[in-house]
Amino acid sequence: MTAVPAITPCGAANRYTINPMAERYSLMIHGGAGELDRVRNGLKVRPYLNALRRILVRGKSILKEGGTALDAVETCVAMLEDDPLFNAGRGSVLNAAGKVEMDAAIMDGRNLGAGAVAAVSGIANPVKLARRVLACSEHVLLAGAGALAFASEQGIVTVADDDLVTEFRRKQHEKACKAGHVTLVQDPPVPEHRHGTVGAVARDSEGNLAAATSTGGLVNKRRGRVGDSPIIGAGVYADNHSCAISATGYGEEIMRAVLAKHIASLVEFRNLDIYAAARDGMTYFANRVQGRGGVIAIDRQGRCASGFTTKTMIHGWLELGGRIAVTIRRQAGNTSL
Amino acid sequence: MTAVPAITPCGAANRYTINPMAERYSLMIHGGAGELDRVRNGLKVRPYLNALRRILVRGKSILKEGGTALDAVETCVAMLEDDPLFNAGRGSVLNAAGKVEMDAAIMDGRNLGAGAVAAVSGIANPVKLARRVLACSEHVLLAGAGALAFASEQGIVTVADDDLVTEFRRKQHEKACKAGHVTLVQDPPVPEHRHGTVGAVARDSEGNLAAATSTGGLVNKRRGRVGDSPIIGAGVYADNHSCAISATGYGEEIMRAVLAKHIASLVEFRNLDIYAAARDGMTYFANRVQGRGGVIAIDRQGRCASGFTTKTMIHGWLELGGRIAVTIRRQAGNTSL
Repeated sequence: MTAVPAITPCGAANRYTINPMAERYSLMIHGGAGELDRVRNGLKVRPYLNALRRILVRGKSILKEGGTALDAVETCVAMLEDDPLFNAGRGSVLNAAGKVEMDAAIMDGRNLGAGAVAAVSGIANPVKLARRVLACSEHVLLAGAGALAFASEQGIVTVADDDLVTEFRRKQHEKACKAGHVTLVQDPPVPEHRHGTVGAVARDSEGNLAAATSTGGLVNKRRGRVGDSPIIGAGVYADNHSCAISATGYGEEIMRAVLAKHIASLVEFRNLDIYAAARDGMTYFANRVQGRGGVIAIDRQGRCASGFTTKTMIHGWLELGGRIAVTIRRQAGNTSL
Repeated sequence: MTAVPAITPCGAANRYTINPMAERYSLMIHGGAGELDRVRNGLKVRPYLNALRRILVRGKSILKEGGTALDAVETCVAMLEDDPLFNAGRGSVLNAAGKVEMDAAIMDGRNLGAGAVAAVSGIANPVKLARRVLACSEHVLLAGAGALAFASEQGIVTVADDDLVTEFRRKQHEKACKAGHVTLVQDPPVPEHRHGTVGAVARDSEGNLAAATSTGGLVNKRRGRVGDSPIIGAGVYADNHSCAISATGYGEEIMRAVLAKHIASLVEFRNLDIYAAARDGMTYFANRVQGRGGVIAIDRQGRCASGFTTKTMIHGWLELGGRIAVTIRRQAGNTSL
């Protein structure tokens, strides 16, 4: 754990007066916080950054065409789930039983509408199932077999674990079991696979905010373990009155800190701007629960910020209709490619 | 839903200067918020109030003897679970599949330590299982079969559904199924059974805060539905730096509002006292998500407050070592017995 959290205004919005005529949509996505410390080789990280860029291009087209923040975050997170590089959907890590169990959530900042699923198996896109919970059920969170029964009613076809599990994840799980590890940073010798949880936050041109988060959780986690990703206020939060947040890292620490709502409350009750709120939120997270993780955040004005207490965090953004940027940001410095 | 929330300083602490030599422990418990509107008959409500008093006497003895807030809330909630009058543990409502599925959580305000279980069956005291998750696992929240596997490892014996289900709950479920209801207020013709979720908050004489919440959830809820009770920051929260909260009501609305953390943030970031924080929290809950429910809260100084947007809430307390009080409080007036 790094004691001093990195807080990064992501774009130029804090340096100029926002033009009210400009395109006001913003989008951020992340592929997890971890310890990509020794990676200096552009070839190793490039597939991750290329994936983020490709997904941001798609998300940008949705927002540019007047699509909603909710649609943009769902689409981006589903694409991150589909990419086996990331620990969500296809490419999820295995739990102690050698199975995939995934968590996901989506939140609509207009009315605090939320949908989430926890400990689900055999679902290719948990974020899409979470969206159905939001749209088509009277509940917010469905877990395990009950969530799968709901998926079946909604006509969502389940897939075999083999369709979600990559060869790398099987080997990683075997090693973790031998070592008795429950781990976020995953397998040290293969730095390019250390990143985990994925998420997206967006502000659309109507000024509405949304957030979504999805994960396969921790390697070798206990069966039935639910992390922060499907917990409203912990791993995901969106409120048009403050900001949209997606978190990543050790879920237990994020849940205890109620991290996303904590940062939103700093914006709402302390009138902090999103950079100061992310900074103070990360300081609180590090000091109060020795938290390891990070957040991406977009505020009502569409300003983008990120913060993390881990050594690195992989994320990308486009601010106020501007150019797309992707980076594996480090605590000291920046390896933006 | 009642638009104007009731906010009630529960004792006399706001009317006199606290004597630093006095016993500084405080305890509150609740048996749910609902619509006990037409109950004027002392005989009908007396069993509830007697149960609360009996449980507060036991909790008080723990705190008076120097026990921890964490032990006090666990014991009180376990006793509420054991009492078939309340919708938690024995006496839990049935879900759409005609089964009992319970949620519970416990939180330690010293270090934000938390343990929770969701959608568990056949556990007599879910709050005790949540305490084991806090004490003996590296996780915060375990759901469904995984939680039961953990219970088994911990030597917690499961019980048959028949040991938890009362005849009243079976009939209530049959009626709800026929009517197609998913309901908090439960069965209108039987007002004495309308109250739901249970919870406790405490401040011990060391100044430490703790909170616990437990529930059988909503009548006829979907299988796998998880409510606010096991969600840190929604149905339960405790932080020595602000306050301890247990919420009750429609879980979906409480989760979307992240209600417990919202109130704690009002204390921490706006420097509101616990009465003003409970009041503003209830106003927010009513206005932002049309929330139906209530909270009990104890702050760092041991002051007790409650607030609710439903017609009534059944709760009891003892403030700063003072006398025990129990009440079914109404929006306008008070039916304290």
